[in-house]
Amino acid sequence: MIPDHCQRPREIAAIDLGSNSFHMVVARVVGQSLQIISRHKQRVHLASGLDEQQNLDLAAIRRGLTCLAMFAERLQGFEPENVRIAATYTLRQARNAHLFLKRAESIMPYPIEIIPGTEEARLIYLGVAHTQPESGRKLVVDIGGGSTELVVGENFDTRLLYSKHMGCVSYNQHYFAEGKISGENMAAAQLAAQQKMESIASQYHKQAWDKAIGSSGTIKAIREVLIAKGYNDGVITNKRLNQLVEQVLSFKNNDELDLPGLSDDRKPVFAAGLAILAAVFQSLKIEEMIYSDGALREGLLYEMEDRFRHSDIRTRTASAMASQYHVDIDQATRVKECAEDLYAQVEPQPGPAKSELSTLLGWGALLHEVGLSISYPGFHRHSSYLLRYSTMPGFNLEQQTVLATLVRFQRKALKLEEMPELSIYKRKHLYPLIRTLRLAVALNGQRTDEPLPKIHVKADKESWELTLPAGWQENNKLLAADLRQEQEYWAKAGWELAISS
Amino acid sequence: MIPDHCQRPREIAAIDLGSNSFHMVVARVVGQSLQIISRHKQRVHLASGLDEQQNLDLAAIRRGLTCLAMFAERLQGFEPENVRIAATYTLRQARNAHLFLKRAESIMPYPIEIIPGTEEARLIYLGVAHTQPESGRKLVVDIGGGSTELVVGENFDTRLLYSKHMGCVSYNQHYFAEGKISGENMAAAQLAAQQKMESIASQYHKQAWDKAIGSSGTIKAIREVLIAKGYNDGVITNKRLNQLVEQVLSFKNNDELDLPGLSDDRKPVFAAGLAILAAVFQSLKIEEMIYSDGALREGLLYEMEDRFRHSDIRTRTASAMASQYHVDIDQATRVKECAEDLYAQVEPQPGPAKSELSTLLGWGALLHEVGLSISYPGFHRHSSYLLRYSTMPGFNLEQQTVLATLVRFQRKALKLEEMPELSIYKRKHLYPLIRTLRLAVALNGQRTDEPLPKIHVKADKESWELTLPAGWQENNKLLAADLRQEQEYWAKAGWELAISS
Repeated sequence: MIPDHCQRPREIAAIDLGSNSFHMVVARVVGQSLQIISRHKQRVHLASGLDEQQNLDLAAIRRGLTCLAMFAERLQGFEPENVRIAATYTLRQARNAHLFLKRAESIMPYPIEIIPGTEEARLIYLGVAHTQPESGRKLVVDIGGGSTELVVGENFDTRLLYSKHMGCVSYNQHYFAEGKISGENMAAAQLAAQQKMESIASQYHKQAWDKAIGSSGTIKAIREVLIAKGYNDGVITNKRLNQLVEQVLSFKNNDELDLPGLSDDRKPVFAAGLAILAAVFQSLKIEEMIYSDGALREGLLYEMEDRFRHSDIRTRTASAMASQYHVDIDQATRVKECAEDLYAQVEPQPGPAKSELSTLLGWGALLHEVGLSISYPGFHRHSSYLLRYSTMPGFNLEQQTVLATLVRFQRKALKLEEMPELSIYKRKHLYPLIRTLRLAVALNGQRTDEPLPKIHVKADKESWELTLPAGWQENNKLLAADLRQEQEYWAKAGWELAISS
Repeated sequence: MIPDHCQRPREIAAIDLGSNSFHMVVARVVGQSLQIISRHKQRVHLASGLDEQQNLDLAAIRRGLTCLAMFAERLQGFEPENVRIAATYTLRQARNAHLFLKRAESIMPYPIEIIPGTEEARLIYLGVAHTQPESGRKLVVDIGGGSTELVVGENFDTRLLYSKHMGCVSYNQHYFAEGKISGENMAAAQLAAQQKMESIASQYHKQAWDKAIGSSGTIKAIREVLIAKGYNDGVITNKRLNQLVEQVLSFKNNDELDLPGLSDDRKPVFAAGLAILAAVFQSLKIEEMIYSDGALREGLLYEMEDRFRHSDIRTRTASAMASQYHVDIDQATRVKECAEDLYAQVEPQPGPAKSELSTLLGWGALLHEVGLSISYPGFHRHSSYLLRYSTMPGFNLEQQTVLATLVRFQRKALKLEEMPELSIYKRKHLYPLIRTLRLAVALNGQRTDEPLPKIHVKADKESWELTLPAGWQENNKLLAADLRQEQEYWAKAGWELAISS
C-alpha cells in the first residue's frame, strides 16, 4: 500500500443550490481529514422566481444556470465521483424543475440531486457536527431562502429533525410585500412561523440540548449586525433579537435598512429572516445561539468522503427499513444475490452511473417486499409507496424514485406507462434493472433454501436470453410455468425473453 | 335483570353473496349460543357474468337481485342491527359493483358490505371454528366460485391467512372452455392453482396443523361423491382425490359428468373445483381433510353476536395498528375525545347508521397519525394510504374507505374532489365527521396535556358555529390563528365556520 502522504491528494467538491444562494466548496482529502481549499458563493434568489403555480420563471432559471456555468469552470477535470451537487427547497417545489435540470446537463457534466427536506436537515447537521466537533447534544437551526431546518443530534447522529416550509425569501414575498416593513407585517410573519412549528415544538422541548447552533446566511447576517452593535461575543440571545426587531421596525422599507454590519445583498430578506429566527427562539424556547460555518455543503463533502471510505449511511437506512417492516431477510438476500449475479452478467464493466444503479438494485432487492407488511394483495405497489415517501437518510429524491420504480415492477403486468418521470437517469437506464429484479424474483418464487443452479443471461437491448441447466425445467415445472408467464409479460411490454437449456 | 329464558329471543340473519351461490342463514340467540333456525341457498353463478373488463353483465345482476328479493321476504321486520350481508370475490372485482348495490338498495333495507379477501378468510375460519369447536390447530380451506381462502388458526384466532384469486366458476371459464374436460385442461388448471400458491406455500409448511378442514360447496360436493363411492367416513385423502381426478377424466364434458352423489347444479364447476382442491393438497402437503358445515355466513352470525356483546374485533385491530405504527397515544386520545364530544353535540340522537359512523370517527381519530411513521410531509396522505390498504380484521372495504377519507381530510386544503366513491354511505354523511375531526385536530394542535375548556358547537348544514370561552382566544393566539386558517379552508370548500366567544 502506498502511504497517504505519497499519493496525490484527491480533490472533492460540493455544490448547494439553495433558494437564496448557490454555494460551492472544494476540499482536499489529506489523510483522514478534509482541507477546504476554496469557497464560492453567489446570490441567485431562486425562490423569488417561483410563481403561484409553483413554476420557476425563466429569469430565475437563467440566474441559476449562469452561476452553474461559473462553478463548472472551476471544476474542469474533476471526476464525477468527486463532485456532489444538491438542490433544496425551490427546486423541490418547482413543478418545472426538470427544465432547469435539463438545461443544467449541458453546462455541468455532474448530476444534480434534488434532496428531501429531511435529508437537507441531516446533511446540515453533519456539516455543523464536523465543523463544531465538541461533544454534547446540539440543536442546529438553518434558515434558508425557502425552508428552515431544525435538527437535534449528538456526535454525528441526528435524533430529531424537521424541515419546514419557511424561509427568508418566501416569507419576504408573503409578509413584507414590496419590501414594506411594519409592526403588523413583522407580527404576521412571526405568527405564521410559530404556527408552522406548533405541532412539533413539544418534541423539541423534550430534548435537552447543550448548545443551540445556527448556520447559513440568515443567522450569519444577524450575528454580524449584533457584533457591529458591540456584542463582540457574537452570541444571539432572545433579548438581543428583540432589540434588533425593534430597531428594524424603525425603518419603513427593506431598501432603507441601514444597519452597521448588514450587506446590501442581505437587506431584501433580512427582516423576514429575523422574524423567522425570533419565532424559532420562542417556539423552541431557545435562550442563546452561536453560529457555525458548517452547513449543507460541508455535510455533502463529509458524506462524500464517508462513502468513499465505504461507510455508506444508505446501507444502514436500508437495513433499518427492512427490519421496521419485518422483511423476510433470507428471501430478500436470495433475491438480492441472484439479481446482482444476473446484472453483473449483463453489465460486466459498468461506468460510475451504472455502478451507482447496480447499488440501487441491491437495495431495491433487499426492500422489494416491505409492502407485505401493509397487505399481500398488490404488495408491490405498497412497497413502492413506502420507498417513495419514507424518510430515508442518505437517499435523494431521484434514488427513492428509482427504488420505488424497481419494486413497483417486480411482478405482474409491466404497465410501463405508469413509470414516473426521472431527472438524473433515463427510463431506459432502469429497464435492465427491472428485468433483472423480475427474473430474480421469479427464479426465487418458491422461497426455499434450495440453491439455484448457475443461470446464464445474455442481453441484446430488449432481447434477453436465459440459459438454464439441461433438464432443470422438467424437474421444476412450477418455475418453468412462472418463466413462461414472465415471457408473456415481457412480450406485452415489447421486450423479449428467450429461455434455452 | 330479566332472566334469559323470559326474554323474547332475538333473531339474527347473515347473507353471503358468493360468486357461485347466495346463502342466507337465520339464527335465534338463546342465552350465550346461537340456534340456527333456517338456511336458504340459491345458485346464481355471479362470477360467470364477469366479462374481460371486469364488468358484471346485466343477466348476472338480475339473477342476484331476484335471489335477494326472495331473501328480503323472509327478513321482513328484522331490525338493521340484526342483519349482516357480505359480498365477496365477484362484487369485489366488478368495476360496476355500485350498479348492483344501488339496485339492491330498493329491494333490501340492509347495507351490503363488500369485504376484503383476508376478511372473508377470517370470517370463514370463525364460522368453522364455532362449528368444529374441538381444540388444536386447524387449517381451513374454502374453495368458492371466485376465490379460495386458506387459513390456519387456533381456537378463535387466525395465525396465517390468504385469499387467492382462484375459484370453481372462474377456473371453469378459463381452463375448461365450453365445459370441455381433458387431461391437458385438468393439468393446466392444477398448475395455475399451484402457481398461485407457490410464494406462500412455505409459510404453511411451517405451521403444524392438527386437522385440515374444508368448507363450502366445492369441498362438500367432492365429499359427497366420495361417500357415494363407498368411502363412508367422508374423509378426503390425496389418493382418493387422484382416483376421482382419473374418473372425471373419463368424461369429455361437464354436462356428461355422471357421478353418483353429484347434483346437476354442481356439474358445471365440479372439474374446476376438483383441480383446485388437488392443487391445494399438493402445494400445502395435506394428507387428509374433513368437511365442516361452518362457513362465511356462520362467521358473520357469530361475529354479529360478538359485537352485540361489545367485544368488537375492530377495537383490537385499531389498537394493534396504533401500536405497530408508533402512534402518539396521548395525542390520539385527546383528539378522539374532543372529536367525540363535538360530534355528540352535532348529532345528539344518532340512528343506527350515524351511530356506526360515530364509531368510525373514534377509530379514525385514534389512527389519524399512523402515516407519521412513513414521513412528516403530507402525513395525512400516508395515514390515508395505510388505512385504505392495510389488512384490518373486522373492517369491510367501505369502512376502510371511510377511515382513509377521514384521515385524508384531517388537515390542509379541503380538496373534496379527491373524495372516493362510496357504496353504503353518501359523501354528505362524511362531511360532519370530517369537520369534527378537523376541529379536534386543530384544537389540539399544541399536543399538550393542558386540558381544553368546554367548547360548544352548533351545526346547521354547512354552517357551523364554534363558541369558545370569553377571553380564551386572546390568551391562545396560536390556536386562534389556526382557527382563522381553518375558517379559510372551510370557506374555500363552500362551508362556513363561525367562531364566537
